[in-house]
Amino acid sequence: MANAPRTRLEPEARRAQLVDVGLQMLGTRPLEQVAIDDVAAAAGISRGLLFHYFPTKRDFHVAVAEAAAAELLARTDPDPGLPPLARLQAAVAAYVDYVADKRDAYVAFVRGSSGGDPQILAVYDRTRTAFTLRVLDGLGLPEPPPRVRVAVRGWVAFTEEVTVDWLAHGDLTRAEVVDLLDEALVALVTVTLGDWPPD
Amino acid sequence: MANAPRTRLEPEARRAQLVDVGLQMLGTRPLEQVAIDDVAAAAGISRGLLFHYFPTKRDFHVAVAEAAAAELLARTDPDPGLPPLARLQAAVAAYVDYVADKRDAYVAFVRGSSGGDPQILAVYDRTRTAFTLRVLDGLGLPEPPPRVRVAVRGWVAFTEEVTVDWLAHGDLTRAEVVDLLDEALVALVTVTLGDWPPD
Repeated sequence: MANAPRTRLEPEARRAQLVDVGLQMLGTRPLEQVAIDDVAAAAGISRGLLFHYFPTKRDFHVAVAEAAAAELLARTDPDPGLPPLARLQAAVAAYVDYVADKRDAYVAFVRGSSGGDPQILAVYDRTRTAFTLRVLDGLGLPEPPPRVRVAVRGWVAFTEEVTVDWLAHGDLTRAEVVDLLDEALVALVTVTLGDWPPD
Repeated sequence: MANAPRTRLEPEARRAQLVDVGLQMLGTRPLEQVAIDDVAAAAGISRGLLFHYFPTKRDFHVAVAEAAAAELLARTDPDPGLPPLARLQAAVAAYVDYVADKRDAYVAFVRGSSGGDPQILAVYDRTRTAFTLRVLDGLGLPEPPPRVRVAVRGWVAFTEEVTVDWLAHGDLTRAEVVDLLDEALVALVTVTLGDWPPD
């Protein structure tokens, strides 16, 4: 990555620029290997100035993890205007496309790119919770029984594992992966709810 | 943890002792926070002697991760003499008991206790593969179609997520968790295979 020329930026713009540089690096390495020196160089600022915006390396990594999670959530909800179930199916398809587009960053996200840091683990946990709530909303189940909530949350993990396996093996088509995820969700909700989808 | 008195041990016994100390510490902290100094002190040896057995901290952590994975696999196959399907159900029940017994170590295992280290991620990956192969064997499907293999691997991740959620929320009984995991496996295999279980 070529180093950027030094330019003056407003504090918020500078913070956003630094996080964006971190996000780009996340495409090719796990988060804990996103080095402060590399980020500062790519942004054309000194290491000291970066620490002015993010007091510790950990603060910076948490900000990058949050930005990555926000991007993933935004990209996987392509059309909020659709009816709930169609919106859910569109989200699954968009999720699979995101996975294929950002494979390195995605595998790093799923596969413990946290260094065991509790704040970063909390970002991942909130992301899984956001997916779970979105799915429950799409199913018309905002206050589900515990069995259903747990099963949908388990399906989010199922989705992560299936897509990472797909990237590793490549022996299913994109359409087969989308179908598998859709059918698995229906099967798991049916098992836990008993009478879904309603007629 | 009280420091042990210094005693002479054969090299293999010493290695095993050190790994065992690491395994015990894994019960209360993530792997990358298992500190060499603490392990050496608990084993009653010098830091230098520990590095004689494990050239780097990473070598030690990989050995501890492998031991944790071996323990998990051993504990969750309580009766290899059972018929395949009964063995599988017993394994699910034993898995849930293991989770409840070793909750801190288990959550650390599931939740990115790797520091992003490729060797440790490989240990986790091999563990998930071993679970997947065990399940496929229990189902009488040693060479499954890709859809089924991916779905069973996804169910292993589903199982990890459901059990971690159970530890966090505690709003299901042990029996409900075991039933949910059994029923989810049947549902996912049914969806992907179409005609399972056979009559």
